[in-house]
Amino acid sequence: MIRPIRWAGDRLILLDQTRLPREEIERALPRWQDVMEAIRTLVVRGAPAIGVTAAFGVALAARQSPATTFDELLADLEVAIKGLAATRPTAVNLFWALERMRRVALAARDLPLAELRVRLVAEAQAILDEDVAANRALGDHGAALVPPGARILTHCNAGALATAGYGTALGVVRSAHAQSKVALVWVDETRPVMQGSRLTAWECVREGIPHRLVADAVAGSLMARGEVDLVVTGADRIAANGDTANKIGTYALAVLARHHGVPFYVAAPFSTIDPSLPSGQEIPIEERDPAEVRRVGAQPTAPEASPVYNPAFDVTPAGLITAIITERGVFRPPYRFSA
Amino acid sequence: MIRPIRWAGDRLILLDQTRLPREEIERALPRWQDVMEAIRTLVVRGAPAIGVTAAFGVALAARQSPATTFDELLADLEVAIKGLAATRPTAVNLFWALERMRRVALAARDLPLAELRVRLVAEAQAILDEDVAANRALGDHGAALVPPGARILTHCNAGALATAGYGTALGVVRSAHAQSKVALVWVDETRPVMQGSRLTAWECVREGIPHRLVADAVAGSLMARGEVDLVVTGADRIAANGDTANKIGTYALAVLARHHGVPFYVAAPFSTIDPSLPSGQEIPIEERDPAEVRRVGAQPTAPEASPVYNPAFDVTPAGLITAIITERGVFRPPYRFSA
Repeated sequence: MIRPIRWAGDRLILLDQTRLPREEIERALPRWQDVMEAIRTLVVRGAPAIGVTAAFGVALAARQSPATTFDELLADLEVAIKGLAATRPTAVNLFWALERMRRVALAARDLPLAELRVRLVAEAQAILDEDVAANRALGDHGAALVPPGARILTHCNAGALATAGYGTALGVVRSAHAQSKVALVWVDETRPVMQGSRLTAWECVREGIPHRLVADAVAGSLMARGEVDLVVTGADRIAANGDTANKIGTYALAVLARHHGVPFYVAAPFSTIDPSLPSGQEIPIEERDPAEVRRVGAQPTAPEASPVYNPAFDVTPAGLITAIITERGVFRPPYRFSA
Repeated sequence: MIRPIRWAGDRLILLDQTRLPREEIERALPRWQDVMEAIRTLVVRGAPAIGVTAAFGVALAARQSPATTFDELLADLEVAIKGLAATRPTAVNLFWALERMRRVALAARDLPLAELRVRLVAEAQAILDEDVAANRALGDHGAALVPPGARILTHCNAGALATAGYGTALGVVRSAHAQSKVALVWVDETRPVMQGSRLTAWECVREGIPHRLVADAVAGSLMARGEVDLVVTGADRIAANGDTANKIGTYALAVLARHHGVPFYVAAPFSTIDPSLPSGQEIPIEERDPAEVRRVGAQPTAPEASPVYNPAFDVTPAGLITAIITERGVFRPPYRFSA
C-alpha cells in the first residue's frame, strides 16, 4: 500500500509529491516549521493528507517547545497552529485536525508535559489511522455505486497520496477495481500542478489499474461519445448544503456530467464537511502563484508579461452532485449536514 | 501587423511557432518537403494558416520539379499534394487550398511551364492575401456582436499566427479592441500544445490587448461567476449543418456557455466550411503523439508507462453555436451551408 505520511519516532516522513512520478524521495521533517513549508510547497497535498500532516506538525511543535509549564507549551502550540492553519485556506480538514489537536492538549493540561507530548503524537497517529480506515469504508460504499465494466473519470489526485493511504475518489476506484468492476479510469492531467498525470497516473501504474491519461479539455468530448459511465472526485471542503469545493475544473466536469446524464460523485471523509458554512459561497478559494501557469517546472510556456488568474479550487453546487460518499455512508440530495 | 507566413522570391518563410513566446525565429523552407514537415511539427498551425502554407508548398513543388512536360509536372505536383494533404486530417482549408492549386495547374496546362510555375506562386499569394482580407472582414462582422466592456473568452490560438494575419477569433477581438469594446480577454492556455499561453497571450502582449491567462479548467468557474460575456473560437472544419470541429476543449466550452447563458461564437473564413459533410460526425479527428501529454517540452509530467488519449480536436454540435462569423457575414441557426 502507498503510505505517503509516516511518523518515525521523532520526525515526520513525507513522500515528496513534487518529485513524482520521476523519483520516489522521502523527506524527513523534524520541526513544525518544516511541516508548514512542506504543505505550502505541495510536498504533501490533498485535503485529508494535509489534515493528518498538520496534526503531526502540532505534535512536533510540542516536542520542540522548551516550555516547562502548560501555559508556556500552549502558547507555543498556538503559534504552530496559527502558522499551519495559514498554509492552505480551502481545505477544511486542516482546521478540523488542528482543532482536534488543540482539544487534546487542553484536555491534558493537568498531566506532566512529557505525557502531553506523547499524547499529541498518539492523537496525530490516530487521525492518520482513522483516515485510512475511513477511506477503506468510503471506498466500499462508493464501489457499490459503480456498475460492472465501468469507465470512471477522475480529476486531480484524490488517491492514497492525497490521504494517509488508500484514497477517497481513488479509494472508490481501488475498491471497485478489487471487485473487478473497473474497465478504465480516465485520468485528467489537472493543470497547472498536474496532480492527475503525475500522481493519479502513477498510482494507477503502481497498482495495475487500467487507465488512460487525457488533457483536462478532453473530458467533455469523452462524455459526448458515451465513454464515461461516472465521474468521481475528492473534495477540499463541503458546506452544510452539499456545495463542494474541489480542485479547479471540478465544477466544469459536474456541468458536463449533468449535460450528458453521467452520475457525478464526490468522495470525502466526513471531516471534509464544514457544517458551519451554510453554502459554498462562503468557502474561501485559494489563489496560487501565477508562475504555476506561466511555466511547467522550469520551462516557460507563456510570456512573462501576461497576467494570470490561478485559482486552485472551484465550488460545485450541491444540485449537480449525484451523491456524496463518506465513511458514514452515501448521502443524496437534498444535503443537510449538521455539526 | 504579425505576418507569420511570407514568400521570399524562391522560398517560403515561416515564423517558427514552436519557439514562441521565448524566441521569434523565422524558418526558410526551400522545398515542399520542408513545408510538409513544418505543418506536421506545428511550426505553422491553425487551419487557415495551414491552407496558405500548403498552397505555397505546391508552388515550391512546381519550382523543384525538373519536368519538361505538363504531365510530368502534374505528376510531381500530385505527389506533393498527396504528401501535404496527409499532414493534418481535420483542417479542411488544407484540402481546399490544395484543390485550388491543382485547378490552377490544370487550367494552365497549355502555357509554358515557366509561366505555370509563376502562376502557382501568384495563386498561393492570392490565397494569403485573401485570407488576411477575409479575416479583417470577419473581424468587423464579429465586432458588431461584441458589447461594450466585453470580457471575451477564447481557446487555443485563432489569431494572426493561425492565419496569414489578423486572425479569426482573435480577429474579432482585434476589431472589437480597435473599437475600444474589449475590457478583458480570458486566454485558455490550451493543453497540451499550449497555443493559448504561448501564442494568443503573446499576440495580446504584443498588441496591448488586456488579457489574463488561465488553465483550461478555469473557464467554467469564470462563467459561473458571471465573468465571461461571450466565447469566441476558431474552427478547423465546419459541416453543412454548422457542426464545427475545433481544438479539443471547444465542445466543453460550448456546453458550459449554454449552461450559463453565455453566447458562443465560431469565427472562421468561409473556406473552413465543408458542405460535402452533412454533419460533424463525418469530420475526421486527428490524434497526436502521446508524448505531447506525457511531457511539456522536454520535461516529463506523467509516467512513461501510462497510456494516453490525445485527440487534437472535438466537434461542437451546431445547436450549441450562437452564430458562425465569416467574411461573408454572420450565420445563425439553422445552418444550411451548401457548395
